[in-house]
Amino acid sequence: MNGAESLIRSFVDSGVRCCFANPGTSEMHLVQAIDAVPQMRAVLALFEGVCSGAADGYGRMTGIPALTLLHLGAGLGNALANLHNARRASTPLINVVGEHAIHHVAYDAPLTSDIEAVAKPVSAWIRTATSSTGLAEKGRAAVRAALAPNPNPIGNVATLIVPADCAWGEGRAAEEGPIAPGARPRVPDDVIDASAAQLNEHSVLLLDGVALSEPGVRAAGRIAAATGCKLYSSTFPARVESGPGLPAVTRLPYFPEQVLEVLKDVRVLMLAGAEAPVSFFAYRNLPSNLVPDGCTVVRLAHRHDDVVGALVALADDLDAPHAGHVVEAARPDLPRGALSTANVARILAAMAPEHCIVATDSGGGGAAYPVMQRAVRNSWLNLTGGSIGQGGPAATGAAIACPDRQVFALLGDGGAMYTIQCLWTQAREGTKVVTVVYSNRAYNILEVEYRRLGINDIGKTAASLFDLSGPEIDWVGLAHSMGVPGARASTCEAFVLALQRGLESDGPYLVRADV
Amino acid sequence: MNGAESLIRSFVDSGVRCCFANPGTSEMHLVQAIDAVPQMRAVLALFEGVCSGAADGYGRMTGIPALTLLHLGAGLGNALANLHNARRASTPLINVVGEHAIHHVAYDAPLTSDIEAVAKPVSAWIRTATSSTGLAEKGRAAVRAALAPNPNPIGNVATLIVPADCAWGEGRAAEEGPIAPGARPRVPDDVIDASAAQLNEHSVLLLDGVALSEPGVRAAGRIAAATGCKLYSSTFPARVESGPGLPAVTRLPYFPEQVLEVLKDVRVLMLAGAEAPVSFFAYRNLPSNLVPDGCTVVRLAHRHDDVVGALVALADDLDAPHAGHVVEAARPDLPRGALSTANVARILAAMAPEHCIVATDSGGGGAAYPVMQRAVRNSWLNLTGGSIGQGGPAATGAAIACPDRQVFALLGDGGAMYTIQCLWTQAREGTKVVTVVYSNRAYNILEVEYRRLGINDIGKTAASLFDLSGPEIDWVGLAHSMGVPGARASTCEAFVLALQRGLESDGPYLVRADV
Repeated sequence: MNGAESLIRSFVDSGVRCCFANPGTSEMHLVQAIDAVPQMRAVLALFEGVCSGAADGYGRMTGIPALTLLHLGAGLGNALANLHNARRASTPLINVVGEHAIHHVAYDAPLTSDIEAVAKPVSAWIRTATSSTGLAEKGRAAVRAALAPNPNPIGNVATLIVPADCAWGEGRAAEEGPIAPGARPRVPDDVIDASAAQLNEHSVLLLDGVALSEPGVRAAGRIAAATGCKLYSSTFPARVESGPGLPAVTRLPYFPEQVLEVLKDVRVLMLAGAEAPVSFFAYRNLPSNLVPDGCTVVRLAHRHDDVVGALVALADDLDAPHAGHVVEAARPDLPRGALSTANVARILAAMAPEHCIVATDSGGGGAAYPVMQRAVRNSWLNLTGGSIGQGGPAATGAAIACPDRQVFALLGDGGAMYTIQCLWTQAREGTKVVTVVYSNRAYNILEVEYRRLGINDIGKTAASLFDLSGPEIDWVGLAHSMGVPGARASTCEAFVLALQRGLESDGPYLVRADV
Repeated sequence: MNGAESLIRSFVDSGVRCCFANPGTSEMHLVQAIDAVPQMRAVLALFEGVCSGAADGYGRMTGIPALTLLHLGAGLGNALANLHNARRASTPLINVVGEHAIHHVAYDAPLTSDIEAVAKPVSAWIRTATSSTGLAEKGRAAVRAALAPNPNPIGNVATLIVPADCAWGEGRAAEEGPIAPGARPRVPDDVIDASAAQLNEHSVLLLDGVALSEPGVRAAGRIAAATGCKLYSSTFPARVESGPGLPAVTRLPYFPEQVLEVLKDVRVLMLAGAEAPVSFFAYRNLPSNLVPDGCTVVRLAHRHDDVVGALVALADDLDAPHAGHVVEAARPDLPRGALSTANVARILAAMAPEHCIVATDSGGGGAAYPVMQRAVRNSWLNLTGGSIGQGGPAATGAAIACPDRQVFALLGDGGAMYTIQCLWTQAREGTKVVTVVYSNRAYNILEVEYRRLGINDIGKTAASLFDLSGPEIDWVGLAHSMGVPGARASTCEAFVLALQRGLESDGPYLVRADV
């Protein structure tokens, strides 16, 4: 058994079962090892940003790290933007990056680069193997690192760099057995007690991370019922369990002036796995810190604490009822006429099956959240790190993780183009992903932001940098070219028909929504 | 005048005229500045790897740095793979990367990351602006860094990080006037003299960098005529001027055993802007260093030296004739019947117009080089850093740099998918790029490399990681979806017709070559 096989066996033994791969020559022994270990599923992507985004979606849905298999520093570079999103999501994820054989690095062959340096901005843990016999243990250490609860900015991306000679040399089996997620520190009783005294109808309980899991939101709903506090999530939580039968959790809005408006009469902002809200970008006349004067920030639990335990303890401390206020099911009627972002949301909410998964990195997708929350139980995956091109890959990985659930990818036309190669992987794997592309033929958010600078007369060159209309992208043709059927809709009626076809399909489907 | 406008004006004043852009909110003042300075051309790309690859192609053709305009660390990350290629090519190139306002960084908003750390593996020069008044001078310093001759591994990529407040604050004009490329050290006379004594029919003069410019290869041809030495280029030079009327320069082959075979009877290997050949990857039973025993390596000039001057001085020292052996024009006949990689090369060589530009990152493209060299004057752009997905963007940038020349992008189907968004920019800009996709529905090189491990029985999972046939990519439909017309060819006759249509087009065209 060579080092590569010892590594893949140690991953499988630890509980890791899926690898999103775009290998090259330096990874051939790793490919051979994956071939030899059938418990490891290999999913090919044609661009590394799809690998990392899919591994992020997979990890968010399972809590188990997926592997990416990447080709030296350049392959890792292509994966970097979605690894940034995964880091911000605290998603467990392991990059396995091939490297030249140790003796070969000094020759500075064309693909040589400082892989650890490339990994550094996104990785909580980085190791370069130094021997074939030590490789399997390094693999287990990577799994432990991916499963160790960490504060948000550090994340849970582990990067293991594997020189080719460590892969091809004689391996040694690692310690056996599954690896469980690391323990989360328990929040002390005095913090719980002090928190209980501070919540009332002038308070907001701000949830993020595992606080937005089903037990987390259920406990938060009890707290809200007992105290009258309002429940919000951060603007971009990694995953939210929501829908009828669960408490309503409102997303904090995106623009800083909107957040300030939401919080303007709030006396206590209590953080449960969340951080105090800050502006997504800096603006000349707006603060970075979005906590208004007169609002006190209280920390119930850090993201890496036992946040759910703290919420349950707080609810119990408050003698809260065992069922808090929950959302009652309210499927909207199907709208008619011209299609709009709002109508897309209504139709999705009217037609989406129970227990669907939604991955979105677009404003249009975000607008669908409150409507969907009232209509159908869902797992909602947001763009955590602000780097668009995440929704499609994340949907792909989520569908591979949860083959029995319908997945939606709600994408802007600008964002979808960064990682459009995900459609090919969806077709190959037969994933049940319905992609909705909000086709407004623009980087619309940029035009909005540009106007926020006070410029209403947009010059020709600036306009050209926001404009996707020349040429217009034929989304249905683009999907077809990668094996994904689809249809275009400019009216509500057409969108309903297209969505129906997508939901009836056994595999992926794309709907172009002209909004 | 704000800092952003002072920066763009300083770039224009320094001689920089083109910006390949994929901006976001933090770059809005820079967009406004580009809008205000009409001498700066802005070219939108829908993925940052297209920006960096296009800037690489532009810089190779003009010797003048183009800008990329990128959105924080995530945008720079997406550009990284082609920046790695640009670094290896010593292409002058300037990344302008937006960053949060200085006061905002500490709030760790979602897009915050360590941008300098992302830039480090690819950049010879990195600065983060600290004031709006100093921004314009930092821009000039970036131009100087991009134009300073550097050794190969350091490259000429300069990265200027611009916090939003440095862009929106009051600017100050920089020193005025164009910036010329930095001086290249002259090679001492004693090195020239010593070199002259060592060349004969058992020698190879190995050329790279500016040695492969027209004056460089002309001087090398004189040296070959005077001494009988053979002329080779490195396997992946950034740009080669070749064709009838110029001396023949053979590329060193790709696989290490092939290089060892070429050099086996060579007594002296003289380096002119090149490095001694090393294996692209490490193999268990092959050396990294490909200089055989008994072959002496002699350095005429480093890549950052005045390599052309050294070659001319050496030719003069040898009293070499003023016209060396040159290639005589020999357009091949058009082949007939089934299409193959070799037949694609013959047809290209038969039909390509004079002074065309070829950008390629594929084995098929590489195979066309010797045939094209005998047929037509061309500028040949190779994949310098081994990260595929470079040919299409480089062709795009080269076409924008040289609108009067026909450009060819010779791409593998695997490689083309990484940065396929370049087709949209080609359509928008009306670039004269004919893209040939060698559609073998496989990562063929990986299967070859896998077999080189001694494995001839490729398992199902391994095979799935080399296979692009399920689903088969409809290249013509894919191109059409982004506004690029095209045709599919399975025979020589069909390829000739398709190529003819492409050459007659005023804009881009794609030919799928089933090989």
